[in-house]
Amino acid sequence: MTEYIPPASQFARLPDAFAMKRGGAIDGGRLAYETWGRLNDAGDNAVLILTGLSPSAHAASSAGDPSPGWWEANIGPGKPIDTDRYFVICPNALGSCRGSSGPASINPATGEPWRLDFPRLSIEDGARAARAMLDVLGISGLHSVVGCSMGGMVALAFLQQNPGFARGHLNVSGAAQALPFSIAIRSLQREAIRLDPQWNDGHYDDEHYPETGMRLARKLGVVTYRSALEWRGRFGRVRLEPDQRDDEPFGHEFQIESYLDHHADRFARSFDPNCYLYLSRSMDWFDLSEHCPSKATGGSVHDALALLQVERSLAIGVETDILFPLNQQEEIATGLAAGGCDSRFVGLPSPQGHDAFLVDHERFSPLIADFFKD
Amino acid sequence: MTEYIPPASQFARLPDAFAMKRGGAIDGGRLAYETWGRLNDAGDNAVLILTGLSPSAHAASSAGDPSPGWWEANIGPGKPIDTDRYFVICPNALGSCRGSSGPASINPATGEPWRLDFPRLSIEDGARAARAMLDVLGISGLHSVVGCSMGGMVALAFLQQNPGFARGHLNVSGAAQALPFSIAIRSLQREAIRLDPQWNDGHYDDEHYPETGMRLARKLGVVTYRSALEWRGRFGRVRLEPDQRDDEPFGHEFQIESYLDHHADRFARSFDPNCYLYLSRSMDWFDLSEHCPSKATGGSVHDALALLQVERSLAIGVETDILFPLNQQEEIATGLAAGGCDSRFVGLPSPQGHDAFLVDHERFSPLIADFFKD
Repeated sequence: MTEYIPPASQFARLPDAFAMKRGGAIDGGRLAYETWGRLNDAGDNAVLILTGLSPSAHAASSAGDPSPGWWEANIGPGKPIDTDRYFVICPNALGSCRGSSGPASINPATGEPWRLDFPRLSIEDGARAARAMLDVLGISGLHSVVGCSMGGMVALAFLQQNPGFARGHLNVSGAAQALPFSIAIRSLQREAIRLDPQWNDGHYDDEHYPETGMRLARKLGVVTYRSALEWRGRFGRVRLEPDQRDDEPFGHEFQIESYLDHHADRFARSFDPNCYLYLSRSMDWFDLSEHCPSKATGGSVHDALALLQVERSLAIGVETDILFPLNQQEEIATGLAAGGCDSRFVGLPSPQGHDAFLVDHERFSPLIADFFKD
Repeated sequence: MTEYIPPASQFARLPDAFAMKRGGAIDGGRLAYETWGRLNDAGDNAVLILTGLSPSAHAASSAGDPSPGWWEANIGPGKPIDTDRYFVICPNALGSCRGSSGPASINPATGEPWRLDFPRLSIEDGARAARAMLDVLGISGLHSVVGCSMGGMVALAFLQQNPGFARGHLNVSGAAQALPFSIAIRSLQREAIRLDPQWNDGHYDDEHYPETGMRLARKLGVVTYRSALEWRGRFGRVRLEPDQRDDEPFGHEFQIESYLDHHADRFARSFDPNCYLYLSRSMDWFDLSEHCPSKATGGSVHDALALLQVERSLAIGVETDILFPLNQQEEIATGLAAGGCDSRFVGLPSPQGHDAFLVDHERFSPLIADFFKD
């Protein structure tokens, strides 16, 4: 199975019989995580970082793993989330394949990978696992919980489950519920994997592997993670050199096609297909309004957000994001404000779409630094 | 082979040795077409309608085929394109499978379908075939050429090839060149078909048919033809009834997923996969600026548009269109105006994205009627 665990990973055991929202339980579960900085004596400087679908816990470099992390620009000594001041903890998501329990990890009851026997995964399960990890670490409260993309969903579930536990919340290109355009995209990505005969209902191995499905899924992901505006400037209609083209009928000939190939090459064999399916579906299922007591009488996402107890928040979105569109971060900020939170929303004109938080540091880092300067 | 020809179709023979832009030639070629209304004595009331990728020549009902056409709301007696006044001609696109020559039609040299032996198809070939059809019909000039979506590309190529032949031009959600986001989407759609083992380099039959690839391609098409805004209002997070769900792992459970299934059901077996590949690629290749004499010195789409000779034009786009975005229709209007054309651009707030011209008659029809009222 595909399971790459970054070298600086530590592991927090989840309680046995860890119950999952939609039924079933995990024995012998764990979250992989990394930390930076130190918990202060008052115990009030901990920052929890929750990732998108595919990143590992390696958000930033450290002595144990000097390779750059996925948010290297924003986490470290003197950086926007200053690890000279904050104790930063980033877990690999529950259900992922970077060291945390999920479909690719071993089911202790059988000694074999869980595959599709892993219980159905919800965003809320990831939030409960993160809290269990903090308990193991002896963290009794957070300066803030930060969530990017899918992590922004997990962060909202975390706030809902743990009233008053985090004083602050930074939501980066997240959402309080999945909407049909994003569901459609993710459903197609899952379909590309499921319909690959090599997926075989989750029973693949390195030799018989749903690479075609994973490549299509990843390419469709990349199309929706970036934006037409960025690609127009970056690739235009530039062709591949003749020696870069393949000879297949209808083979690639534009640079944009080669770019998608490159992303598929990097991803298809380095992320577990079953984990991808589980995490992808968990996003479709997420709807914070389920947790609104007034749901039965038409409770809304707005009402559910207004019930969250957090003192201050910043929600950042990007105008060119088609997967987690800007109005979803504005909705988060408005909802939190309605509950009395000192809440701010910033929409950025980054051309890089949903992925902007991973690349447009010029726009994101000053906002993040400002949020953490207090 | 999948080849559905509407019953009112007529056929125009293309000249033998019909030379294709990228090499090769067609013998025994033809375009299927339908007409409405009558050519007047002055011969100046002919309107040419050029379609998107998948429609047939059946743009509107007639005595020979009373079933509604794909632009029924806009073509007919007393309708925006009033067939009491205009002689309307709509061909099925060259390369399509609705009666015109293409990969699914018979290669007279072998008596077998062309399949991938059909010469590489360019948008410009479709424009030349349309002109050849008009010659057969004895049409020596056009009131206007109308192009929707892909047809908007063919229409621009037609104007470039036939200076002064058409007095007017209506471009609906078209483009003067393909840009990388749209190329990426179409490349993925082609990949879904090509990677289906049943495609078999174009040698499929009804029993061994690339249905999986065609279904994925169509679903991805539908995702990009509509818009997040429309789907949010139309589907929200509504679930399927339990008895509508399938029991497959990761099977569908949201209405939006069932909607995509429905579209795939209707399309996968009713449009020829090889034709789809040819037409899709022809759009990626299209770049009107190739025809600008100053191309060698950096000629632009704008310059190429400014060289077109047409007296009046209207370019209509839709704010929620992600496949042929609004700025591409604005570019057409601006470029034509720079060449002296009485040119107008209208951007519509339709929520239905690229497909709006097929459904949002309330917004489109008055504009079309206004263009044809003179």
